[in-house]
Amino acid sequence: MKKIAIIFGAKSFEHEISIVSSISMKKVLKNELIYIFIDKHREFYLIPTQKITSKLFSTGEYKKFDKLSITQGGFYKSSFFGSKAIEFDVVLNLVHGGDGEDGVLASMFEFFNIPFIGPRTSASVVSCDKYITKGYASSHDVKTLECQYFRKGQDIKIAKYPVIIKPTKLGSSIGVSIVKNEDELSYACDVAFEYDDEIIVEPFINGVKEYNLAGTKINGEINFSIVEEPQKEEFLDFDKKYLDFNRTEQVAKADISFELISKLKDNFTKIYNNTFDGSLIRCDFFVIDDEVYLNEINSIPGSMANYLFDDFNSLINELSNNLPKSKHINITYEYVNKIQKAKGK
Amino acid sequence: MKKIAIIFGAKSFEHEISIVSSISMKKVLKNELIYIFIDKHREFYLIPTQKITSKLFSTGEYKKFDKLSITQGGFYKSSFFGSKAIEFDVVLNLVHGGDGEDGVLASMFEFFNIPFIGPRTSASVVSCDKYITKGYASSHDVKTLECQYFRKGQDIKIAKYPVIIKPTKLGSSIGVSIVKNEDELSYACDVAFEYDDEIIVEPFINGVKEYNLAGTKINGEINFSIVEEPQKEEFLDFDKKYLDFNRTEQVAKADISFELISKLKDNFTKIYNNTFDGSLIRCDFFVIDDEVYLNEINSIPGSMANYLFDDFNSLINELSNNLPKSKHINITYEYVNKIQKAKGK
Repeated sequence: MKKIAIIFGAKSFEHEISIVSSISMKKVLKNELIYIFIDKHREFYLIPTQKITSKLFSTGEYKKFDKLSITQGGFYKSSFFGSKAIEFDVVLNLVHGGDGEDGVLASMFEFFNIPFIGPRTSASVVSCDKYITKGYASSHDVKTLECQYFRKGQDIKIAKYPVIIKPTKLGSSIGVSIVKNEDELSYACDVAFEYDDEIIVEPFINGVKEYNLAGTKINGEINFSIVEEPQKEEFLDFDKKYLDFNRTEQVAKADISFELISKLKDNFTKIYNNTFDGSLIRCDFFVIDDEVYLNEINSIPGSMANYLFDDFNSLINELSNNLPKSKHINITYEYVNKIQKAKGK
Repeated sequence: MKKIAIIFGAKSFEHEISIVSSISMKKVLKNELIYIFIDKHREFYLIPTQKITSKLFSTGEYKKFDKLSITQGGFYKSSFFGSKAIEFDVVLNLVHGGDGEDGVLASMFEFFNIPFIGPRTSASVVSCDKYITKGYASSHDVKTLECQYFRKGQDIKIAKYPVIIKPTKLGSSIGVSIVKNEDELSYACDVAFEYDDEIIVEPFINGVKEYNLAGTKINGEINFSIVEEPQKEEFLDFDKKYLDFNRTEQVAKADISFELISKLKDNFTKIYNNTFDGSLIRCDFFVIDDEVYLNEINSIPGSMANYLFDDFNSLINELSNNLPKSKHINITYEYVNKIQKAKGK
């Protein structure tokens, strides 16, 4: 089994849930694990696996461990005797939200040629921005709810309440509000604009059926999780979702028809292929009048949605053997040479 | 005036035109310039400004100059006496194609907190992938040509010829073919799939009117270039486009109505706001029956489209004072502390 480097933390509104998510991996992965923490200043630290607790980070104690640098091929530890490569086979990107799910770390791993499990840069962008998600889904023949899109400073007019207001670029319900009437609108927009300069406004459908489905591609075929019907109050608040990131126990299957499961899988496949190669994602769907609508794509789901899979450990190991390869680019200087010749130099 | 670090080269099919584009900046920018080259192995080199020629790169001579590393806050040169920061105020990202226009370098500059002129990560993704561009344009109420989308291995059926076949993710006409009938289809697809695993097929409209418009946002307002009607043969081939990257002389304005100019500007603004903040882009449009269609977004146009602006030098300097700022993220460990308490630890 591969030696996995779990990368977590970083400059993200979901920094803390990334810590919880990462620690939960100790329970569900049998691989040899190492932990690389990114602090809020975006410095890398190697945290000894046996010593990891959430308290290490809240107290700042992590700073006593080795600081790492990133360069071609991997992470390095500097010392008086020179620099030493940190050994591992593959990174598992467990940074939720900013840095992890917006393409920043994906780009870094790509640039530094470090193999990683997680969404690539374009997959990150189409999933982390909820408005771009709608354009992407529509191009791939997947329905989403109609929405209005506003930028900070624009005049916000709502034709029909209730609505749900979301910052375009955050997950875990951060900055999200349900607005029942015009009186509540201005406060809800202020909250959302705290987190983002763009918001979307969708109809809020009380009691709408919600189903979550996770999956990843192994040898060209999507391996699906069970379908889960998430528990919900009005909608999951942050505290509740937070504790969810710690989940390591299997949940019950949603009690739905074979036809509906197959529709959900079909929609998942359209979203996944091929943009999400190399990642394990969870798609959250609404079902309204037997029609499936994509709500959102979690490109790095909490605790990797391990609780939705029968054999999560094998899946992650197979996925690590199925990472997309970068195109070979042949740089020959053919054109530069042609110009040199034309100039007679 | 700011000291600008021009970053160029990198692992890109457009590596060579990036070299040409970057050298052309010496003629059009009065700022103090430094040059940081990224070679095909993605190593950084500091190239002395007075010595830069395209030949340095084709011969491999660049390797005799200082190698740099990237870390929080900037680029560093290591020596026997320790590491020394390279001084500059702002990066100008002039890596065309891969690494530069796909979000990889934007992400790196964001992570390492290096101010830069160029598209941010999400702007890069929505512009470099021509299929994602269509979804983005449509969400922002900008028309594009209808297209078919195919992945490698899929059965390609074309209802009506001629068509133009494009790899989804490359610029500068690389891998693009016009296909007049079914006999030509399979070769053209092979060519496109050489460069990308996804292609789009659009109707080819002979003699379609094409107009290019560049611009950037300064103090909340878009500063537009003149509208150019690009010369064309059937379509610009790579050699021709390549020499274009060297352009430093003003071109003539397209002879079109005030109404059409204003329509083009209106479409440009819808595309630009606010995703492209911090960058100077060129949008290439088609006009068919008085309707404007976006053809493509060049998020780092050849030689920064300097030849379309009256005072390119001032514009770049103003842009460098108008770069978007990252959101402040307050990491308080509030939730981790709450869990600690709940556990009684």
